[in-house]
Amino acid sequence: MRAHPDERGVIAEFRRALGLRGPHEDAEAAAVRSPRLLAKVDTLVASTDVPPGMPLRAAARKAVVSCVSDFAAKGARPRLALASVTLAQRTPRAHVRQLASGLAGAASEFGMAFLGGDTNGGEGLSITVCALGEAPARVPRRSGARAGDVVMVTGPFGHAAAGLAIATSRRRLAATARFAAAARRALVRPVPPLEFCAGAARHFTASMDSSDGLAATLWEIASQGRVRVEVDAAPAGEGVRGFAARNGLDAMDLVLYGGEEYETVFACRASSRAALRRRAARLGVGLMEIGRVTRGRGVVLSDSGRRVRVRNAGWRHLSGR
Amino acid sequence: MRAHPDERGVIAEFRRALGLRGPHEDAEAAAVRSPRLLAKVDTLVASTDVPPGMPLRAAARKAVVSCVSDFAAKGARPRLALASVTLAQRTPRAHVRQLASGLAGAASEFGMAFLGGDTNGGEGLSITVCALGEAPARVPRRSGARAGDVVMVTGPFGHAAAGLAIATSRRRLAATARFAAAARRALVRPVPPLEFCAGAARHFTASMDSSDGLAATLWEIASQGRVRVEVDAAPAGEGVRGFAARNGLDAMDLVLYGGEEYETVFACRASSRAALRRRAARLGVGLMEIGRVTRGRGVVLSDSGRRVRVRNAGWRHLSGR
Repeated sequence: MRAHPDERGVIAEFRRALGLRGPHEDAEAAAVRSPRLLAKVDTLVASTDVPPGMPLRAAARKAVVSCVSDFAAKGARPRLALASVTLAQRTPRAHVRQLASGLAGAASEFGMAFLGGDTNGGEGLSITVCALGEAPARVPRRSGARAGDVVMVTGPFGHAAAGLAIATSRRRLAATARFAAAARRALVRPVPPLEFCAGAARHFTASMDSSDGLAATLWEIASQGRVRVEVDAAPAGEGVRGFAARNGLDAMDLVLYGGEEYETVFACRASSRAALRRRAARLGVGLMEIGRVTRGRGVVLSDSGRRVRVRNAGWRHLSGR
Repeated sequence: MRAHPDERGVIAEFRRALGLRGPHEDAEAAAVRSPRLLAKVDTLVASTDVPPGMPLRAAARKAVVSCVSDFAAKGARPRLALASVTLAQRTPRAHVRQLASGLAGAASEFGMAFLGGDTNGGEGLSITVCALGEAPARVPRRSGARAGDVVMVTGPFGHAAAGLAIATSRRRLAATARFAAAARRALVRPVPPLEFCAGAARHFTASMDSSDGLAATLWEIASQGRVRVEVDAAPAGEGVRGFAARNGLDAMDLVLYGGEEYETVFACRASSRAALRRRAARLGVGLMEIGRVTRGRGVVLSDSGRRVRVRNAGWRHLSGR
């Protein structure tokens, strides 16, 4: 056991101490008589979660997006929110306004009302959002995938990682203006598939938000379900392969391990495909079928005829990465 | 308007941007059909909120206490909680365990269940707790005090400020062992009057948690109610006057402006006195009547025959104090 636990170790410590049994979930449902409440808390820490050049307004929005994405993955709509904002001493009023405006804009964008919150002084900026809503009659779990299911994602992967690479790389990376804009948009202004999932989740046998990265998400679905996920169509975003090739990067690294995509990854019966595709087409959601669930364990990927080992890795706080 | 807003300015900015109308409250009630939900979020930032020598377990407990105290003031019991914990990189496992144990112990102490949470890496420790519970049929507001009401507090004031002075003063302060222990206990292990208030709040015409300090709390009750609060018995904790005199401190500074007391300050009809005193005696709560509500504005205090001006001041984050 490591003396300095990474995020997983920290979560395990807290869950054990707090008596939280059952598998770890994106958001938590609780009976407050009827209807059941769904609740989720998430903190954005500027020093680790906000890339260089990201406007404060977008950072505040992203603090809300993290919760919204977890609600989407569970097929629920967040309705209420509380925010706790920690600011450095002498934060300029203009910055405070940008942050407040980002929270307000996100609330309006996603149909939520802020109940209130708390502000604090600290060493740097962080924003915690607690989102509340009604749980659907059946909340899809991470653990429900069964052999024979197909695996789908609600959007492309790799743009956010490319955007982060462009924003933080010491060398100048080559990208078309169009690709650079798409990459930056994915990083700075992700849009979770709230509307699609609210109507689609009754088809999900298992689902999870992908913000820790596609590989980590698929691994979690595989291990909680005690199944294997076989990916035969890596959902690389438009231009990601070309960008990677031009800059000597591995496209699959960007797609599998980058994280920061606020898409929903889910498994469903093959018979649900047609209905889900129709719904996605109607809402303009880039739904992609990426593989299937089989007996076994772990995650395997065939990309362009090449077998790629998928590591159980992705973004993890406190990992020193 | 100051270029660098203090906490009040920050709150005003956020409330305006988020469309939060009506007076600022300790905790927020919302209809999730029935029953109504009460929700509160509060962040403890180690660098500003945790005094030197405070054990991590007590710090984590205090993050919960902040929410519990706000629930108590509204006459409600928190039932569910979420926690978001931000830790410095390479936080030792032993520290993580102490924090988790502090949260778990507090949940058990106050009858709450943790639903889940979130962990993050950052520059220093902070803990955000979001508490949820059922709102009572009538939630007492800060604004309901009326001329003729009496003003009461659920415990003594000044011990926590004395404890903080002892812990942080550059000079060695003189205190009896007994007083030093009481002062430290008030600072490190405050106990909000949850049980008392759950049964007493139906008598409250106005109420508020006192964690920002007695003076700031009375001012808030006076200004939201558009009334005057006349204090004729400052609720100085046992030994506070003696401690202040021995060390050249102003006892009223400790009592009025120290903050960090997690008591409930409330107004009620004079006819409620007897019932409230009986309940307090049965539960061992140190209820004190400190004054009355009159027509007018502001807060005035007569202490030992001396008229003391009560400033609208107390603990405020981001004030640079």
